[in-house]
Amino acid sequence: MTIVNYIEEEDASDRVKEVYRDISESRGGAKVNNIWKVLANDPDLLESTWKRLKEVMGPGTLDPLVKELIYIAVSVANGCQYCVHSHSAAAKKKGMTDEMRSELFSIIATASQTNALAEAYQVEVDDHLKI
Amino acid sequence: MTIVNYIEEEDASDRVKEVYRDISESRGGAKVNNIWKVLANDPDLLESTWKRLKEVMGPGTLDPLVKELIYIAVSVANGCQYCVHSHSAAAKKKGMTDEMRSELFSIIATASQTNALAEAYQVEVDDHLKI
Amino acid sequence: MTIVNYIEEEDASDRVKEVYRDISESRGGAKVNNIWKVLANDPDLLESTWKRLKEVMGPGTLDPLVKELIYIAVSVANGCQYCVHSHSAAAKKKGMTDEMRSELFSIIATASQTNALAEAYQVEVDDHLKI
Amino acid sequence: MTIVNYIEEEDASDRVKEVYRDISESRGGAKVNNIWKVLANDPDLLESTWKRLKEVMGPGTLDPLVKELIYIAVSVANGCQYCVHSHSAAAKKKGMTDEMRSELFSIIATASQTNALAEAYQVEVDDHLKI
Amino acid sequence: MTIVNYIEEEDASDRVKEVYRDISESRGGAKVNNIWKVLANDPDLLESTWKRLKEVMGPGTLDPLVKELIYIAVSVANGCQYCVHSHSAAAKKKGMTDEMRSELFSIIATASQTNALAEAYQVEVDDHLKI
Amino acid sequence: MTIVNYIEEEDASDRVKEVYRDISESRGGAKVNNIWKVLANDPDLLESTWKRLKEVMGPGTLDPLVKELIYIAVSVANGCQYCVHSHSAAAKKKGMTDEMRSELFSIIATASQTNALAEAYQVEVDDHLKI
Repeated sequence: MTIVNYIEEEDASDRVKEVYRDISESRGGAKVNNIWKVLANDPDLLESTWKRLKEVMGPGTLDPLVKELIYIAVSVANGCQYCVHSHSAAAKKKGMTDEMRSELFSIIATASQTNALAEAYQVEVDDHLKI
Repeated sequence: MTIVNYIEEEDASDRVKEVYRDISESRGGAKVNNIWKVLANDPDLLESTWKRLKEVMGPGTLDPLVKELIYIAVSVANGCQYCVHSHSAAAKKKGMTDEMRSELFSIIATASQTNALAEAYQVEVDDHLKI
Repeated sequence: MTIVNYIEEEDASDRVKEVYRDISESRGGAKVNNIWKVLANDPDLLESTWKRLKEVMGPGTLDPLVKELIYIAVSVANGCQYCVHSHSAAAKKKGMTDEMRSELFSIIATASQTNALAEAYQVEVDDHLKI
Repeated sequence: MTIVNYIEEEDASDRVKEVYRDISESRGGAKVNNIWKVLANDPDLLESTWKRLKEVMGPGTLDPLVKELIYIAVSVANGCQYCVHSHSAAAKKKGMTDEMRSELFSIIATASQTNALAEAYQVEVDDHLKI
Repeated sequence: MTIVNYIEEEDASDRVKEVYRDISESRGGAKVNNIWKVLANDPDLLESTWKRLKEVMGPGTLDPLVKELIYIAVSVANGCQYCVHSHSAAAKKKGMTDEMRSELFSIIATASQTNALAEAYQVEVDDHLKI
Repeated sequence: MTIVNYIEEEDASDRVKEVYRDISESRGGAKVNNIWKVLANDPDLLESTWKRLKEVMGPGTLDPLVKELIYIAVSVANGCQYCVHSHSAAAKKKGMTDEMRSELFSIIATASQTNALAEAYQVEVDDHLKI
């Protein structure tokens, strides 16, 4: 029920194939997920999205698993079913335990609640927090 | 421009004072923030929200700073100005460096982008991700 | 900091004046709020929005105050500061007590939390609920 | 396609069984819905969520049916399919007629429209509404 | 899994039939989509929604295709699966090419990203933009 | 009240200055807006965001003004005050008339309403729309 066709590897242009190869290699030979096969309908979008994602989720100050947890948090808050599934799978591969998932989801739930309360009561930012 | 009055400590009931004391102590003697002074208009809500927040953000498998980063991510995605400010300040106190903040915000930006793309193209969850 | 000018009554066309009069009368002679002065830049939009709002919030099966509470709930969830303020004021005029407001906001908070949890865990609709 | 397994009663710990019993009893012997079977993967979350929901949706100033209508309004605005279904079913049990549902949904639609307009035009809160 | 029944033409009241006829005619004899069959449970809502939609999407300064692209953009941002599908189909009929769709989705993705960044960093509106 | 400092041109690194110059030139010598001065705290993010934005909003099949209208639509739906202001100003510069703005905002309002209705009623995608 996607809006476009999935571009399978055998039907892909060389440019798209190159991105697919990089995605697969970066993930230890994993299958290329549907999101990329869809973005491949627009090679510029595919390339720029993958390039930026690879940089952002790559080595840095934050732990790779922590990065996935943050990604899941945003995806839940934005109501993106696809991204919740794909990044939950990725987090699991990177070591997310059941305890971690429970803590992650509890934080998301509590934050959603206090976000709503701050909005409902129209709480003003404290002067000492304006930094 | 809040919907209710802020309940200052001197005007608070004993029950509310007790929660304020616990909030302040848990945060090394810090001032009680506006959100709590607003929730104090409804002592049940104040107590249940604080109690749950304390549990959720307290010691666990995930690092306290990581928990704050997740909280910020949800608050940004939900567009909660108050919570972005208060939890950014909290994260800073717990050791969030400028590099960490940059990485956090870059992940939020990239996730928001792919969330939108998954929704725009109506990408279906891959069978191998359904776990 | 609005995107357009507010159309004050003295500067309004006859068509806009007529809508202003109806708004004011329907609210016991109250001032016309900013939202209407902004919509007046597009008289068709002003008229169709007011007409529908009047019908929807007018006499029906649900109590007028209950209707305002529902309006506030949607506005909080959508993060609309203007609408939270204007409909909280309207609800107060129609009899919303502090207890009612507390209950309303607690429901909003709890619903936001379970909404987030259903999304995080990707809970499937029970067969017996599909009606 | 949920992220975790559903915990059926026969596989549940005593603590979880106790919550299931309370849920079922509070609802006149009804089946325990999927959301609880999912939260049961994290007994603390299950217990705190159920406890708070029971309080919030229990006897108070607002009518139980009105509380359900508010819950539905938030769930629609947050785009939570699961919660729209489960609370529509609950509201029906508590007496929501077709007329009430029509009025509820019309308010949600109209509020969503004016929320968007206030955001588009960046309407400022009227001074006389700042209370 | 809709909340109500679809009202098929043969079961519709004369008033609903009249709206169905107008919808079909305005779209070159096309089938009446599910959204209208659902709204038909509330003839007032059906009529007012269709009437306004027809005006808004009808001839004006903006090109009909451009109007559809804007509609899709809002629907993606609001996470409305139904509307993404129905308005993508409508846009295609009105001449949306694959290149246009790619550009549309790229703008949506980029806007979602900068929206998130403005929220994360809490950027203040420049004085020279306040007009 | 931003989370970071604005990086003014005189304090910027050569890399950041280069991006500022490109932004200003691409916009006919216009001032560099706050969003860029904030992103400059993270030069990678600044560069990648500007580069992609320039491509996406640059020459293509869709008219530059149409692209701005789409950008505004997404920003309104996401509730991004900053982006509504900055892209409304940009659209005006590119020729958005008052009539166009009225049509744009009316479409946003109507789409928000039908998005909410599709979610409330849980309308299923028609088979003939699944393409």
